[in-house]
Amino acid sequence: MPKNIIIDTDPGIDDALAIMLAAASPEVRILGMTAVAGNTGLEHTAPNLAKIADLLGLDVPLGRGAIRPLWRRDTVPDANVHGADGLGGYALPDSQRTLEPAVPLLARLVEESDQPVTIVAIGPVTNIALFINEYPETARKVERIVIMGGGARDVLGNATPTAEFNIYYDPDAAAAMFDFGVPITMIGLDVTHKALVGSAHLAGLYASGGPIATMVEAITGHYGEAAYSGNDLDDAVAQHDSLAIAAAFLPDIVTTEHLFVDVENVGRLTSGMTVVDFAGRTGNAPNCDVALDVDTERFVTLLADRLTQLDATLKERA
Amino acid sequence: MPKNIIIDTDPGIDDALAIMLAAASPEVRILGMTAVAGNTGLEHTAPNLAKIADLLGLDVPLGRGAIRPLWRRDTVPDANVHGADGLGGYALPDSQRTLEPAVPLLARLVEESDQPVTIVAIGPVTNIALFINEYPETARKVERIVIMGGGARDVLGNATPTAEFNIYYDPDAAAAMFDFGVPITMIGLDVTHKALVGSAHLAGLYASGGPIATMVEAITGHYGEAAYSGNDLDDAVAQHDSLAIAAAFLPDIVTTEHLFVDVENVGRLTSGMTVVDFAGRTGNAPNCDVALDVDTERFVTLLADRLTQLDATLKERA
Amino acid sequence: MPKNIIIDTDPGIDDALAIMLAAASPEVRILGMTAVAGNTGLEHTAPNLAKIADLLGLDVPLGRGAIRPLWRRDTVPDANVHGADGLGGYALPDSQRTLEPAVPLLARLVEESDQPVTIVAIGPVTNIALFINEYPETARKVERIVIMGGGARDVLGNATPTAEFNIYYDPDAAAAMFDFGVPITMIGLDVTHKALVGSAHLAGLYASGGPIATMVEAITGHYGEAAYSGNDLDDAVAQHDSLAIAAAFLPDIVTTEHLFVDVENVGRLTSGMTVVDFAGRTGNAPNCDVALDVDTERFVTLLADRLTQLDATLKERA
Amino acid sequence: MPKNIIIDTDPGIDDALAIMLAAASPEVRILGMTAVAGNTGLEHTAPNLAKIADLLGLDVPLGRGAIRPLWRRDTVPDANVHGADGLGGYALPDSQRTLEPAVPLLARLVEESDQPVTIVAIGPVTNIALFINEYPETARKVERIVIMGGGARDVLGNATPTAEFNIYYDPDAAAAMFDFGVPITMIGLDVTHKALVGSAHLAGLYASGGPIATMVEAITGHYGEAAYSGNDLDDAVAQHDSLAIAAAFLPDIVTTEHLFVDVENVGRLTSGMTVVDFAGRTGNAPNCDVALDVDTERFVTLLADRLTQLDATLKERA
Repeated sequence: MPKNIIIDTDPGIDDALAIMLAAASPEVRILGMTAVAGNTGLEHTAPNLAKIADLLGLDVPLGRGAIRPLWRRDTVPDANVHGADGLGGYALPDSQRTLEPAVPLLARLVEESDQPVTIVAIGPVTNIALFINEYPETARKVERIVIMGGGARDVLGNATPTAEFNIYYDPDAAAAMFDFGVPITMIGLDVTHKALVGSAHLAGLYASGGPIATMVEAITGHYGEAAYSGNDLDDAVAQHDSLAIAAAFLPDIVTTEHLFVDVENVGRLTSGMTVVDFAGRTGNAPNCDVALDVDTERFVTLLADRLTQLDATLKERA
Repeated sequence: MPKNIIIDTDPGIDDALAIMLAAASPEVRILGMTAVAGNTGLEHTAPNLAKIADLLGLDVPLGRGAIRPLWRRDTVPDANVHGADGLGGYALPDSQRTLEPAVPLLARLVEESDQPVTIVAIGPVTNIALFINEYPETARKVERIVIMGGGARDVLGNATPTAEFNIYYDPDAAAAMFDFGVPITMIGLDVTHKALVGSAHLAGLYASGGPIATMVEAITGHYGEAAYSGNDLDDAVAQHDSLAIAAAFLPDIVTTEHLFVDVENVGRLTSGMTVVDFAGRTGNAPNCDVALDVDTERFVTLLADRLTQLDATLKERA
Repeated sequence: MPKNIIIDTDPGIDDALAIMLAAASPEVRILGMTAVAGNTGLEHTAPNLAKIADLLGLDVPLGRGAIRPLWRRDTVPDANVHGADGLGGYALPDSQRTLEPAVPLLARLVEESDQPVTIVAIGPVTNIALFINEYPETARKVERIVIMGGGARDVLGNATPTAEFNIYYDPDAAAAMFDFGVPITMIGLDVTHKALVGSAHLAGLYASGGPIATMVEAITGHYGEAAYSGNDLDDAVAQHDSLAIAAAFLPDIVTTEHLFVDVENVGRLTSGMTVVDFAGRTGNAPNCDVALDVDTERFVTLLADRLTQLDATLKERA
Repeated sequence: MPKNIIIDTDPGIDDALAIMLAAASPEVRILGMTAVAGNTGLEHTAPNLAKIADLLGLDVPLGRGAIRPLWRRDTVPDANVHGADGLGGYALPDSQRTLEPAVPLLARLVEESDQPVTIVAIGPVTNIALFINEYPETARKVERIVIMGGGARDVLGNATPTAEFNIYYDPDAAAAMFDFGVPITMIGLDVTHKALVGSAHLAGLYASGGPIATMVEAITGHYGEAAYSGNDLDDAVAQHDSLAIAAAFLPDIVTTEHLFVDVENVGRLTSGMTVVDFAGRTGNAPNCDVALDVDTERFVTLLADRLTQLDATLKERA
């Protein structure tokens, strides 16, 4: 039986691939998707989400969520990474879909699900923080929240020296989420930086030549120029968000440790840093399965194969 | 034509009187009321709100809002002020009403109103912060937010030396609200401390002997033992929240100045303080009508007369 | 018997008048003076101190203190108030004096004094914080520290909406000082703003025509253009620092209350604010005599008379 | 020609070994030593410093420095690590030495040295922050400051999850030091945790049987029970401070990278963390040679050999 998931996202280039991976994976059933401000403003991420759903033929409810962090005002994404429009300028047809308010949608989907739901949050977790505060009883029925965000070891942020962007953008929301009590899996930047996917891996997809192939080739090309890599592969970029999707249905694709995590949301230099209590110094009970490593080959193969299959399916359908 | 208002509240003893004042005032039409955690937990404030609505025969939609601040964890109200149950132990009959989720309710009431709406927020403004982030276009249609909270001059908090409780409980929500752009009237503690109402003022009400009289006498008696006063009147207590209600429909009951206000939400000592830029040092445009004084006699007379009328009406109706 | 004082200062226009007042007052004996960065950099305040001592014929040891706050980097004085050179461009002859390191000098002067010493700190209190950390036993022999800084009521800073400049410049030093345990008198901005002195008050001095008259007329003219006033007097400016000197030997020139004071040194908006616990909410024991009012007429007369006498003395001596 | 060094220290068990290593190494000449509060209060670290100097026959000036952090009040060392007295209860004879004020002593030693001086700071850097603020011209003559403190990678603090004790104890002092401009070598916890020394390494020393052998065996026994280790060696403990001493005269005993370092001194969770900008995200110029690895074998051999020689020398001298 597939696992019921909801994707909370700020597409976003690697978000787009992650949604494709979910759509292509029989192990999950997407109940709905919700947009949040992050990689770019909600005026882009919400329409992007609808366009991607159209492209994939995903007939699920979509939500329009938070326009900004819980209270911060000055957190601005780097437009170089995802482009001002969030998809590196790649033009998808406008969608006719209407997006519902995201937070009530999250509540409804969780309540109506026939089995416990996993939320995969691959953008800032503002929507999650709003949801758990407004619908706490419903939120407690969530089986797990898998996030792409933060980092555990060898701290090396992409927003600041110590902060990953999703957490940095709304550290207060993340602090509220980690404190809530629902099991969390954190797929952090130190692990996703090993989830490197380049054109060599995607040669089969690109040869397929359908709509997924075209879009992935175009947007990862843009992304590759800007995204942090630090790897030896010619053009490989980290597919952060796809790894979170994969970990939602293949938990053992990452190695995790059960640890206490909190988020620095006050510091002069470190605001947005996930603080992982490896040695138990805080005395707080573990609240998170912290990813520490990834089976890169398995992940890359999974992503490439699934996207190639999806491309074939969509080509045929067209 | 009466002014359409929504009351966001954490009843709370002075909240109860404020709701009574609104119910008794033909100048306002209550579109709905939403509960928030504050003076006590939402498990009390939400049922209290329903019970009060029942008592007053207020057949309006009610909402259940935030269970806690946006992210803070350790803000605990002083149970001595309002009692653990929020109404000083005064027992009202249980209500059969179902409360809706507060944030979508706020959006619906604002959208469906035939005229611009004033929100009177007399508890922590968590619900307000959630609402403007999730429904920004709707929130921009709000005519004004009148809050009881903070303070302007002669800073003397009731939560800390510099912070009033409503703002202190969720300073981040208040910071988000002040930054949003909808006109705000701030009825702060330095002004409500002049809105002193004692048994001498309410002798007429008490003589009336109906359900309002009974409840007001009981709960203000409790409140009076614990609430800050610092006044010469024997048993007078500040009716903070009622003044905010009054100012919503009688703006000139307070003297205001149009100033820039922001909220300290980081400080070691001053978190929860409203910072009013009297001298224009910040260079920010004014965003708030800051109450600086009150026509106490007019306020006290208004409150006493209205509650007495209400008591008579309810006695008759019963 | 005169009271032994040490003046810690960042001259500074009103600092210059304050030093003149001390030099002209038989009630005090100046044991030494130490310079600190504040109104302008130490490269100006230290030479200014020497030049003023020369002008006044003050043959006392002088100290060169902290070049910057304890750790803050970005606090820059407003050059409009005191001028880039600290004395509004008024040229005094260069001094041949050598300044000693200020902190050991403070210790030596306190140890060698034949009676308990009062330190009058009229600039940022960085030197004081250094002194109490390095020479705690000696510092405990100090009878009292009288500071010009902060504020108590009707908060209205001159650096930010809530912070007075001396405290704002090094709030950490002030926090350390208030925590140390030596009795403190705080002459805050809300009180010194009543210590207004204008040309009408100083007509007698100006008529005297000596070196003090010339300098005071020149520098207060500069200061008056820039300094906060908000008063009805034509050209009156607050003589903040002189009031602290006066309060050191005429304590009842100000009305004080014994209260607990701490300094916000973390806030997003309120860093540098003195937090006065009027209502005893913190539970901390009082550590400061907080000035709440001033006998303005007595102060103005004192300052005008003493400066006029000093001018006459110096004219004669020349 | 030996390198002139000053040791700033809070003995402290590993501090004691570090001083022994310096005393035993012909590559350095100890100009003086200064005590600071840290591992335990200054009322212990100052006398401990004098007793150790006596034991080693080190006839150099000693200084008594800061009694507490620049402004923090509540940082308390863990008495389990070094014992309440700082030396795990090991009793050395009382010293008759008089300690000078540390800050002027630092200035004098630097000024009087015939060659540029390296300061090796193996406790909290409060004294260093005081020194550079009070004697900036002199401090600029310092060739290098080598600190034991902080950490670079694989963050795993010994005071909090992200902070090493020396920096945690006075993060503001460290922030001031890193900002000053004198070259710094940072020997952080992630590297010193590889500088493990156990009884097997010290068998030769212990066999020597002199005063060094006796003391080292006793105090490292105490230290070993409490200090973090996480290693496979039976009783090996990290000799943090000795590695800093070694790196002062054998720079290539550690591998370093020239990077920008600042100190978080505000955070809710991360105060005291050294933030190393590996990727150049801050745009700030490098200010620190950050140790990333150590030649453990060379270090252990060095320490064991030198202490054994010293023991022999002292035995002979006795």
